Formats: sequence, structure tokens, C-alpha cells
Amino acid sequence: MSEGTLIADAAQAAGIELGLPCGGQGRCGRCTVIVREGSVDRPPNRRFSAEDLAAGYALACQATVKSDATIYVPPQKIERKLQTDKTARKVEVPFGYDAQLSQPLRKYVVTMKEPSLDDQTDDWSRLRRELAKQYQVEGLVAELPVLRRLQSALREGEWTVTAVVELDRWDAPAGPPRLVDVLPGEHLEALWGVAIDIGTTTNVVWLVDLHTGEVQAMAAEYNGQIARGEDVISRIIYASRGKGEEKGKGLVELQGLVVGTLNRLLDQVAAQAGIAPQEIYRAVVAANSTMMHLFAGLQPEPIRLVPFVPTINHLPTLRAAALGLNLCPDATVDSLPGVASYVGADITAGVLSSGLHETDKLTLFIDVGTNGEIVMGDCTWLVTCACSAGPAFEGAGVLHGMRATQGAIEEVWIDPHTYEPTIKVIGPEGEKARGLCGSGLIGIMAELLTTGIVDKSGNIHTNLPTPRARLGDHGPEYVVVWAADSATGQDIAITDVDLDNLMRAKAAIYAGFSVLARSVGLTIADVEQVFIGGAFGQYINIEKAIQIGLLPDAPWETFHYLGNTSVRGAYLALLSREAREQVTNVANMMTYLELSADNSFFDEFNAAMFLPHTDESLFPTVQQRLEAQAGD
Amino acid sequence: MSEGTLIADAAQAAGIELGLPCGGQGRCGRCTVIVREGSVDRPPNRRFSAEDLAAGYALACQATVKSDATIYVPPQKIERKLQTDKTARKVEVPFGYDAQLSQPLRKYVVTMKEPSLDDQTDDWSRLRRELAKQYQVEGLVAELPVLRRLQSALREGEWTVTAVVELDRWDAPAGPPRLVDVLPGEHLEALWGVAIDIGTTTNVVWLVDLHTGEVQAMAAEYNGQIARGEDVISRIIYASRGKGEEKGKGLVELQGLVVGTLNRLLDQVAAQAGIAPQEIYRAVVAANSTMMHLFAGLQPEPIRLVPFVPTINHLPTLRAAALGLNLCPDATVDSLPGVASYVGADITAGVLSSGLHETDKLTLFIDVGTNGEIVMGDCTWLVTCACSAGPAFEGAGVLHGMRATQGAIEEVWIDPHTYEPTIKVIGPEGEKARGLCGSGLIGIMAELLTTGIVDKSGNIHTNLPTPRARLGDHGPEYVVVWAADSATGQDIAITDVDLDNLMRAKAAIYAGFSVLARSVGLTIADVEQVFIGGAFGQYINIEKAIQIGLLPDAPWETFHYLGNTSVRGAYLALLSREAREQVTNVANMMTYLELSADNSFFDEFNAAMFLPHTDESLFPTVQQRLEAQAGD
Repeated sequence: MSEGTLIADAAQAAGIELGLPCGGQGRCGRCTVIVREGSVDRPPNRRFSAEDLAAGYALACQATVKSDATIYVPPQKIERKLQTDKTARKVEVPFGYDAQLSQPLRKYVVTMKEPSLDDQTDDWSRLRRELAKQYQVEGLVAELPVLRRLQSALREGEWTVTAVVELDRWDAPAGPPRLVDVLPGEHLEALWGVAIDIGTTTNVVWLVDLHTGEVQAMAAEYNGQIARGEDVISRIIYASRGKGEEKGKGLVELQGLVVGTLNRLLDQVAAQAGIAPQEIYRAVVAANSTMMHLFAGLQPEPIRLVPFVPTINHLPTLRAAALGLNLCPDATVDSLPGVASYVGADITAGVLSSGLHETDKLTLFIDVGTNGEIVMGDCTWLVTCACSAGPAFEGAGVLHGMRATQGAIEEVWIDPHTYEPTIKVIGPEGEKARGLCGSGLIGIMAELLTTGIVDKSGNIHTNLPTPRARLGDHGPEYVVVWAADSATGQDIAITDVDLDNLMRAKAAIYAGFSVLARSVGLTIADVEQVFIGGAFGQYINIEKAIQIGLLPDAPWETFHYLGNTSVRGAYLALLSREAREQVTNVANMMTYLELSADNSFFDEFNAAMFLPHTDESLFPTVQQRLEAQAGD
Repeated sequence: MSEGTLIADAAQAAGIELGLPCGGQGRCGRCTVIVREGSVDRPPNRRFSAEDLAAGYALACQATVKSDATIYVPPQKIERKLQTDKTARKVEVPFGYDAQLSQPLRKYVVTMKEPSLDDQTDDWSRLRRELAKQYQVEGLVAELPVLRRLQSALREGEWTVTAVVELDRWDAPAGPPRLVDVLPGEHLEALWGVAIDIGTTTNVVWLVDLHTGEVQAMAAEYNGQIARGEDVISRIIYASRGKGEEKGKGLVELQGLVVGTLNRLLDQVAAQAGIAPQEIYRAVVAANSTMMHLFAGLQPEPIRLVPFVPTINHLPTLRAAALGLNLCPDATVDSLPGVASYVGADITAGVLSSGLHETDKLTLFIDVGTNGEIVMGDCTWLVTCACSAGPAFEGAGVLHGMRATQGAIEEVWIDPHTYEPTIKVIGPEGEKARGLCGSGLIGIMAELLTTGIVDKSGNIHTNLPTPRARLGDHGPEYVVVWAADSATGQDIAITDVDLDNLMRAKAAIYAGFSVLARSVGLTIADVEQVFIGGAFGQYINIEKAIQIGLLPDAPWETFHYLGNTSVRGAYLALLSREAREQVTNVANMMTYLELSADNSFFDEFNAAMFLPHTDESLFPTVQQRLEAQAGD
């Protein structure tokens, strides 16, 4: 390893993948290593004390080697795999918009006369001629990969083949039809497609029989890019790594990682259905704009720079082989259209699958992920914004935050008299807690508020008759689990700083609602239904989310959990030409509000930096509850 | 190297490329090696005597190793490079059909407003919007490679870029327009395309400024596949190498070799013009059907098997990146259409560039290469055939035959009284002869006939008062150059067997003329003009070719040398939409006659197995000359 090499790069070259959740900016500290021998250059960093430095601590994403060195890499914290429920092979009919089965792929069995010295027509013209004659498929085109298989398919099938034809493509509805695959003999069994959701955190693949619309297999896994940045901004920074001859290195690496993840998922769903991934002939992808850029190998950097302009909102129709996806090489890969840098195809997919674009009720759609995208409207108009909530609800920027995996506290109740908590931990009975995930954070915040442990500004009272509310190393904190009972052997606490981060996240989202509503001359109170999308949304406790002022104070029946609306949108566009037209219309129809250019957003944000809100009249039920509690 | 490995494969693995001119069939003997140590398995082969075998002689394409072995590889005979005349940068206007400049590529300079928080339109939509507004280019599409460069081009050019747009493609004349490249700033200098001819022997690239139609650079090189087979049949056999896991190995290797040759030629022409090959935006390719299949990575095997049906006569429009060609990755690569397995795009290119399809004179077009393709007709009809002449005129199957490179005898005159020859050798003054090339073979055959050294059946008289006509190791022969004067230190002779092979070749071609003419109720005497295409054609001495009965006995002014009509056809289709329509029409118009299914061909062939022909009335001037000579 040459002098000046980053420890992270040296480790990678040696086959050790260090997680760089902040994208290698030296911010998160997760890539801390210990230099045991040899000399390294460590740029100044406030994270390490003089003692830490003396002990050899270094950030692998910042420190460079100056000589041969022995470096100790502590075990990483990131789990690489999600558990996929392999028994769940079918999904119910998606909520909301119900697609008509009208997808563009067909299988045709073609039997033709064997060539002879009297008819020396070339293979390709022979197949075209018969498809026109027998099935009125005129003007067939093809690309190289399938042409390379044509000759052997015709001869192996003794001049009977099954032609897989795509009648039209998204961006050319008038044709021409295209040969996607050719199989020797008759193969009229299922016709396969996949719906793909590339989330910043989790990637999901649904294997669909295009003849019936049934989902025959599902698989999910963390996005392989996670170790290179946990949120989109970190990924964008990582993608810009590489200068001079190595220009584009970070981008190429991230593209390879997500394609690698998708290929593993494709192998899994294919194995579940007992087929080869090469029998899959079409894919439709939903993703936020950054994920879409990284998937296509497009540099996402301008997405994070003013004025936040992506290279492309709607990728053209592509081929699996061009992307490195392990499908039939000629398979079409269509992407859903996005609207802006921070309102991507995952949101148009959500609108499509929720049926929001077809309702006459004033609807609020919210996807609480790392970013917090909001859509408001009905069948006649749609406005949207992204409110930079940040990944606090995914556990980032919170001392004991973590993702919703084994050992995460997902529910908290606090006794208003003893201030003692009861918790629910993800995992088998008796699982010890390791930290707090999003729903747990919302839960504890609400409980701390309603039990009076924190005030409306989010400050923890440390003068209560309980050792749990105390002044800790990081300021005031409330201990949820004592060291003796935790999986980590440390106290699991939530601090004033954590609460401030969480408050900023919820305030950003609520401010987004307010600004969107005001932009069309309405108020939040006018909203008739609220759709909650995103995987995280499924686990939100509505009551508690209202108590902290994350969701508007509306009757419970106003709220609908939609689950992963992104993959459902991809699924609908996979099955239905009408759906792909509709989602294009949705994207065109959506008016994007750039909150960073909107002064009223900052006013609304400041107004929402309170529990539940500075304007208590907006949260009458919470107000009532707090008054009852105080009088208790 | 494991037991059972072919010596040729072992050599290749060790980086030694053995020439396999017959494609590894054990026929040609050019891959002979000497086993000095160790044990090899040698299948029986008539080529080697018992002494040869004892001395360790083996065919590398047949023998397999049984143990570690030391093998001596004699220097190979094949020259790998053609000399390119680097001063010849311009070509005259092609003979015949004169194309109007109407090619589909355009350069547009587009200046647009910088994005802002008030206009966050994505880069792609911004460019599309401006191209539509400023240049009425509507509905622009693009593929991934150019989209990956869009972002930096717009920013480097400070929102002024030059867009390279292809307005339509061959198989979709109605559009949509496609973005091929985007360059920062204003770049209105030349717009580059290439015309490519993939000959079995020689590959040629012309670099063309599409704005003016001028050829700015030319380069030629032997097809890199030559070492894997000298004629198309040998290549087809080589392409089918590889079984089981290695299936397609031979094909992949041959594709890589020709693409490698073309990329070297592209580098050369680009360097001559002082540009990068990535500035070339369009290529049009002409080639025979086998070369076209190998270029596209399509298995050519059925081309040599009854009923001789290729996978495809007209390749679809492809992208440079998909083929591995080192052009702009989004550059279009169009191929000209072929007609049949043995009448390929090189011949339709020839017809196009000769103007044959526009003349009202009855015309015979002949391309004397390894195969001998013939077209007959005028502007209203065209018939064609291939006459399996074999590569005798390229020096194969002739004891001292060679290609037309340095040391080749290209002209021979024999004194009718002394029987002493005078020769002209390719190369600088005083160059010693190494063998006979095609024009030399035609020359000596004619001279032997007119001087009475051979009879009309092609038998050499060995009872003449000259030591040159003698009974040699291979039967009767005539010594053209004595060992003392040759470059090889051996006598250079032509044998009865050589003459028989050459007679078969010329008889096949003449029989082709006869059958074509008869198929439309005409005779050869009705032909008003004869076009001679192909690089070899340029060097044929018409008089002598008539004397041996290769060309019909017509007045000299009937004949026109056209040179490399294949690359000219590609050049025309590169410059002109009209030309690409015309060549498609030519391909559709041509009626292909399968000679192997035509009994009259064998009759005509047998009738032509005589010098000049059994029917002397067909060659009145030759008859006259022979009678004069006899009476002399």
C-alpha cells in the first residue's frame, strides 16, 4: 500500500469493507479503527481526546498511512441482511388504484417451414415473416443478445419456437414490437416481470406473473450502499470520490453495490419460483432521485447543491444488460418518473398506488423516511415538497438510535407516577434492548411529554423523584434501560440533544404540511384523509405521533397506513399501460414547492419547534390530554 | 497444461499465436511444429512421412500433449500488417452512383438559462426544451452513456453546449431524434463518420467529414482473424470451436480479433486527422455475410451447411459500445444489407457504388475474391450468384502461391521461342521473388497457354527444349524462378496440380456468368459492360484473364475496374439517406441463384474446364491468337 492511501481504501483493497455511514466525511465516527503499529497521518478531529489519539484511535475515512502499519478494525455495527419472510409468496390486492392487466409483453408459439435450397430466407426474416403472418406482429425489431440465440433456438426447437415480444415501450407507445427472447419449442408457462423498489435503506423485489398479475415471490435486503453512507447526502458525497484518473470511482462503486444487491434479490425471487433470473423479461423501478441516479451510474452531486437540479427526473427505457442487471439481457428496465431532486419516483409511485390522483377528497400523503416527502391534493391538483427532516427517525443523530432490527425498542410506555418505563423490543421473547428505533423514539418522546418528564420545549426535568431523569455525560437525559438489563452493558438513554434532533425532524415535516396547505389557500384542518407511506410509516403509533406534533390532530379514521407504496407503484406500472400513463400524468401534474426558497417554511418550522406546537389550538386533543395529566 | 490440450491452444495460452489458415482442420499444414521433448498424441495425417514423424513433426491444430513437452515453433509465414499509404488522405469521387449529401447527424449549439430555485428543471428536460424551442428538434431521446456526460458538459460549458443529434435511424426514418453526444461550449468543427469494409483478408476504414463528404484519412490492415483461417469456410469452422463450458469460445475469439483490428484502424485514422476516436459519431459497415456474423458475434456455422441459411442478412442498427468499437459509445453502427450466405453486404455495396442499379446497359459485376460473387442486370432487374471459386487466385492451394505483398510475382511474360520468363516482383528494384500472387498466376497461366507450354487441358509439356518444363516432385511443373535467384533459395515453380486448381477457380466463375445469363434468357455476348470490383480486381490483366477464360471475350472498353467497391458503398450509405434506401432496394431487388441447386452449373463448369473453354467460339480473339501462335 503506497504512502498517502486512506486507511479505508487500504482496508477495502485487503477485502475488509469498513462501513462509512456519513459517506467518508469524518462526521459519524463509525469507521473508527485503532492503529497498533506503524505511522499514520490523522487530520485534526474533535472526536478524539488526547488519550484516544495516544491509544491509536483514527478515522479510517480521514487518516492516511505513512508506513506499513498494523490496524485493528473493531466489529462493525451494521447488519447487512434483512430477514425475508420466505413463506409470504402472495400479496393482497394493492390498496387504492386498481390496475387493469394490460402489460406489453406477449409469448407467441411460432411453427415455421424448415429452410431448404428453395427457400434460403435468413433465420431472422423467417421468424419475422411468420410472426406477421400468424400473429399480425408487423415490423419486429431486435437487438444483438437475442439475435445471438436465434439460430440455436430455431434448430433446437426444430423450427418451432416461443417468441417473447414486447409490443410497445413506454416512450414509444406506437411500437415497433421488439423480440426480447426466443425459446426452442413451446413455452407458454408463466411470463415473468419484476417490480423493484430501491430505497436508500432497503431494496425490495417482487416477482410477478404478468399473465395473472400475481406476486409469486418477494425478497428484501439492505441496499449494499449502506456502508458507504446512511442517508442520500452521504451517498452523494461518497459518489463524488475519486479525482484525476480515478474520477467517478465512488460513483462506479455505489452503482456496483446497488446492482449487486438487486442481483442477489433477483436470484432469491427466481429461486423461490423455481426459475432462472434470465426468464424475467421486464422490470419497473421506483426509487428516490438520488437512488435512481446511482442505479443508472449518473453523478448525483448537483442534487445536493443549490439549486438542487438532477440530471434527469425520468430515466429512458433501458436494457437489463446495459445496467448489469441479471435478467434476460434484452429485458426492458423502465423507471418511474420523478418530480424533483427530493421528490422522486418513489413518491409518484406512492401517489399512483394510493389512488390519491383519483380521489375527490382533499388528501395528505406522507412518506416518513430519511427525508419526509409530502403530497397534498386530489384528482384535480397535486402539490408536493420535501422537508429535509433528516434521518433522525431512522436512528441517526440519536445517541442510542438504531434501525428497526433485532434489539430495537419499538414501543415505550412510562408510568406517570413512578416514571418507570415498560418497553417492547423487536426479537424473540426476552430479547435485550440495544437501542431505540423510529417508532420507539416517537413513543418515548410522547410519553416523556405526557408524563411531564420533558417540557413543551423538549427539555428533560432532572429534578424529578426518579434516578432515570438525570444529568448525564451529554447533558440531561432519561434512562430507558439500565446497563444491567441492556444488550450492550450500557445504560440506554435519550438526551436533550436527541430530543432536539427529533423535534427538528418532526417540526420540518409539520411545517411542510402547513406550507403546502397554505400554498393552495387551505389549512391542515381542511385535510380529509392522510395516507402514510413508506416501510417506516407502517409502525408509527398514530396517537403518539399526534402527541408530539408530527402528524396533524385529526380523528384516527382519517389516517391510512399504506406500507411500501413505492414497490406497489412499480408493480402497477409493470402490469398496466394505463398505470404507466397515469404515473406520468401524476409527475406532470405535481407542482413542486422548493421549501429552501420559501421564507414561510422557516416561520412554520420555528412554530413547530415545540411539543406538540406553539399554536396549541392546532392540537386540541393533545392539549386536553396534557391538561388532564397536569390536573391528575 | 493439462493432458489432452491441443498444442495450438497451449501455445496460445503461452502467448504464442500460431497461424491456423485452414481454421484448425489439419488441412493446410501451416501450423506445423517440431516436438523436441516430451510426448504428444498425433492423429494420423498423410502430410507427414515416417521420417517427418520420427523428426517430431506435428500439426499444432491436431496434436495434443500427453506430458510436459518442449515444442519448437518455426517462424510463421503470415505478415500481419499491410502498409498504409499515409500520404493518401483524399480519394476521388467514387465511380458510378453519386450520392447527395443527406446524412442524418447534426450539431446544434444550444445556450440555455442557468437553473435556479425558480426553475429547477432537470438537465435533460432543459436541454430537450431548448432543442425544441431553438431548433424544432422534438421528442429527443437518449441512452445512458451520453446522459452520464450531460451534467458535466452543461456546467463546464456554462450552459452552452454542442449537441450531436441523429435525426433518424435507418430502420426508423420517422425518428425520434437521438442525442449521440454533448460537448461543453461551441464545437462546430468537422462532424466525423467512418466507412468500414471488413474483408476476409483486409479491413479498411475511411474517416469522413460528414459536413463535406471528404475522406480525410484512410487505413487498411489484414483482418486479425487471418491466423485463424484464410477463407470464410476455415473461419466458420474455427468459430464453432469450444464445447461444453467453452461453447462459443472460437466465435468470441474471432469477434475480438476483428474488433481489435478495426479499433487499431480507427486509432490510425483518428490520429491522422488529429482527433480522438470518440469524436466519431457514426459508422457504416460493409462485409460478406460470414464477416458480418463474426463482427456481430453471431455463430456463422449454418452458412457452410446445406441449405446455407444465415442468421441474418441485414443487421439492425447497433451502438458502438455494444460491439466494442472504440467510437463515441452512443455512435450508431449501421450495416449494409446482404442477400444470402454467399452474396453479402459487400456485394450490395458494390452494386450501389458502381451505379449498376441505375444503368440501362446490361451489366456484369464481378468481385473476384476468395469466393467470386457475380451480379448481372440493369436498373430494372438484378440476378446474383456465388460460384465457390475458392481462394486459388489468392494463392491458396497453389504450391508457391502467396498474397500480393513484397516478393510476390505479379506479372510474367514468357518468350515463345526460348520459353524463358521475364517477371515483375512487388517491392523495391531488385526485390527477389518469393512466390506468385493472383495476378501473377493469371499471367503465367495465360503465357503458358499462348506459348504452348501447356495444352488446352492445362497439362504441362515436359518434352520441350527447356529445363524449366520438367517432371518435378509434384509431377509436371514449369520453373518460373531458379533457386539461385529466388528469395527462398528454392525453385519457384507452377505445377499441373496448381494449374488444375486455378482452372477450377476460373471455370467456376465463368460457369457462374453463363448460368446467370441463361437464367434470364440471355447469353454472355449480350453483356454491354463488365464491372470488376474487389481489391484484387484492380490488378487483373484483362487480356490475360480473357486468354485463360476467366473473363468473357469482349472488347477492352467493356471492362471497368472499380477497386474496393465495398468500402465505397459503405461510404455512400454513410453520407446519404437516399443511398441507404437504394442499397436496401438493391438487396430486395436481387434474385439469388443457388448454384449448388442448379444442375446446369455443373455442365457449364465442366465446359469451362479447358483453356480458354471447350466452346472456342466463345473466345474468338483467344482462338485467333492461339492459331497465330501455332502457325508462328
